[in-house]
Amino acid sequence: MAIAKAYAASAAKAPLAPFSFQRREPNDDDVVIAIRYCGICHSDIHMVDNGWGNSVYPLVPGHEIAGEVTAVGAKVTKFKVGDRVGVGCFVDSCTTCAERDVDREQYLPGLVLTFGGIDPATGEPTHGGYSDSIVVKEGYVLSIPSSLALDAAAPLLCAGITLYSPLRHWQAGPGKKVAIVGMGGLGHMGVKLAHAMGAEVTVLSQSLAKKDDGLRLGADHYYATSDADTFATLAGSFDLIVCTVSASIDWNAYLSLLKVDGTFVVVGAPEQPVPVHAFAVIPHRRSLAGSMIGSIKETQEMIDFCAEHNIVADIETIGVEQINAAYQRVLSSDVRYRFVIDMATLG
Amino acid sequence: MAIAKAYAASAAKAPLAPFSFQRREPNDDDVVIAIRYCGICHSDIHMVDNGWGNSVYPLVPGHEIAGEVTAVGAKVTKFKVGDRVGVGCFVDSCTTCAERDVDREQYLPGLVLTFGGIDPATGEPTHGGYSDSIVVKEGYVLSIPSSLALDAAAPLLCAGITLYSPLRHWQAGPGKKVAIVGMGGLGHMGVKLAHAMGAEVTVLSQSLAKKDDGLRLGADHYYATSDADTFATLAGSFDLIVCTVSASIDWNAYLSLLKVDGTFVVVGAPEQPVPVHAFAVIPHRRSLAGSMIGSIKETQEMIDFCAEHNIVADIETIGVEQINAAYQRVLSSDVRYRFVIDMATLG
Repeated sequence: MAIAKAYAASAAKAPLAPFSFQRREPNDDDVVIAIRYCGICHSDIHMVDNGWGNSVYPLVPGHEIAGEVTAVGAKVTKFKVGDRVGVGCFVDSCTTCAERDVDREQYLPGLVLTFGGIDPATGEPTHGGYSDSIVVKEGYVLSIPSSLALDAAAPLLCAGITLYSPLRHWQAGPGKKVAIVGMGGLGHMGVKLAHAMGAEVTVLSQSLAKKDDGLRLGADHYYATSDADTFATLAGSFDLIVCTVSASIDWNAYLSLLKVDGTFVVVGAPEQPVPVHAFAVIPHRRSLAGSMIGSIKETQEMIDFCAEHNIVADIETIGVEQINAAYQRVLSSDVRYRFVIDMATLG
Repeated sequence: MAIAKAYAASAAKAPLAPFSFQRREPNDDDVVIAIRYCGICHSDIHMVDNGWGNSVYPLVPGHEIAGEVTAVGAKVTKFKVGDRVGVGCFVDSCTTCAERDVDREQYLPGLVLTFGGIDPATGEPTHGGYSDSIVVKEGYVLSIPSSLALDAAAPLLCAGITLYSPLRHWQAGPGKKVAIVGMGGLGHMGVKLAHAMGAEVTVLSQSLAKKDDGLRLGADHYYATSDADTFATLAGSFDLIVCTVSASIDWNAYLSLLKVDGTFVVVGAPEQPVPVHAFAVIPHRRSLAGSMIGSIKETQEMIDFCAEHNIVADIETIGVEQINAAYQRVLSSDVRYRFVIDMATLG
């Protein structure tokens, strides 16, 4: 079995440090990938910190993986050595259903997370993308077109699909007014994607600090939510609001910004429940909904859409030795807009 | 101008007592209606008690009105003297829009409530259906087919449409599993309507006390929410849940009963905000939505649907002198399933 070099947390909240482990021997339907880049997602940090209480250590985070195929199993038909590929948040899904629901498998039981899950092939914990290689069933490997740089494409695998899926599901497009709440790693992808879909895009950010960036990335309007006038000015304005903020904010205030039949979609998860008033949804038939990543089929569709529209993440590339410092900067929102680890620095 | 006999509250929380006032002189587009029956809706009591802080006294409640046309204005084309008609929760809507949005006017500005609103024709407060007559623009008058008894049809005008609209909007029908939360005036209409639409209907009630009624009215299943096993048994079961309960209950527990892409619709409004956890909506792309009555067009569609399926409310008919006692029984959920006032008792 191949030895993978990696960076791992040895315990909850421990700094990440060099680590080696064995990847599984590839099965007939597996693709072996040399990881070139891996994005840093906020949930990596949450898992390292055992924020959801289910982390197992040592833990190798990372589910925004971009690399190249180095070997394929005997029955693999979709990929060949040298192909540019990506791996996102999950590497397997329900295999007991008669038919895999390729349109929304991410919501069904049996999902195997890319890290912190249990590999059904081995019974061992799955290890993620802060590593120089990974072995993944071909059905869970995405193709990355040559026009997209691998480093800046890596964040599409989580941040990209997390925004693309609700924008598509709730039909962002021409004639639709869409707001993106939060201008971070997720939010900046939402601005690019909603703009490319043809929607009129408004950013709702705590301050105007990133206004120039927002307008450059495709936003038509940019408002500070710290300004109380914003909520009065924009009352009843939006068909769709996608909220990327995981801090506890007043969802009722955002619901008031929706038109009749509008939808407020939560993709950032506050740890505490948020009080919701019935009158925030009843008088205008508004909806509060959630959305979580996307299916493999939709993720490939998103990557192809990004290639067509020349969309990647705005990134800051770092070496593995900078991961712990980068985590601190993510926690203080000091990144424009996604850290990507260059796996060549694993040495 | 015609003098109307009525029952009114003279102040917040005052018992209702006989009252007389002048209805407006009919305009060319007005229909004059002799009110035969008026249902008692929980919001009548809430308005009498000034529960929303906007009540004006004397207040004549009532927006589940059934009666007969006694006169029509010169330009009225849809109704003639003797027609059986109904009036629901509003008697006018936005007249400044270039085009009236007949599919969802109830959600738009300019709605004039049947009682407790301001009549744009006179600038005076509107008075509702606890009265022997009412004058309403023909565009806001509903036709009641002869096959429906006027007394039992009266509650369709609020309770009926309040359930019909979300059931239709979220596509209750064959192959869909629908739950109705609460087995009161609203809930019992929900059971009848969802069953007639062809859905598989489950009642979620605090106890099993009304189980026999629920099954008789069309429910396929009936569960007590006081039994914790109910939530485990039914996890992930429903396409649509319509919640008629205005008490503060744990919406997260009900959200957990939805399938992927399911919707929990609130039509009963708790006074306090309800804590909602992001993880109640994110992992299965569930939605929490609100719905409020229906448009005039949809209300007529609902009445015609009820005529086709022989649906009316289960009612207990009372005289005007019993209104105050009936209010107490409504507050203690002691009514199966709607009180209807016989206006002949106004004398």
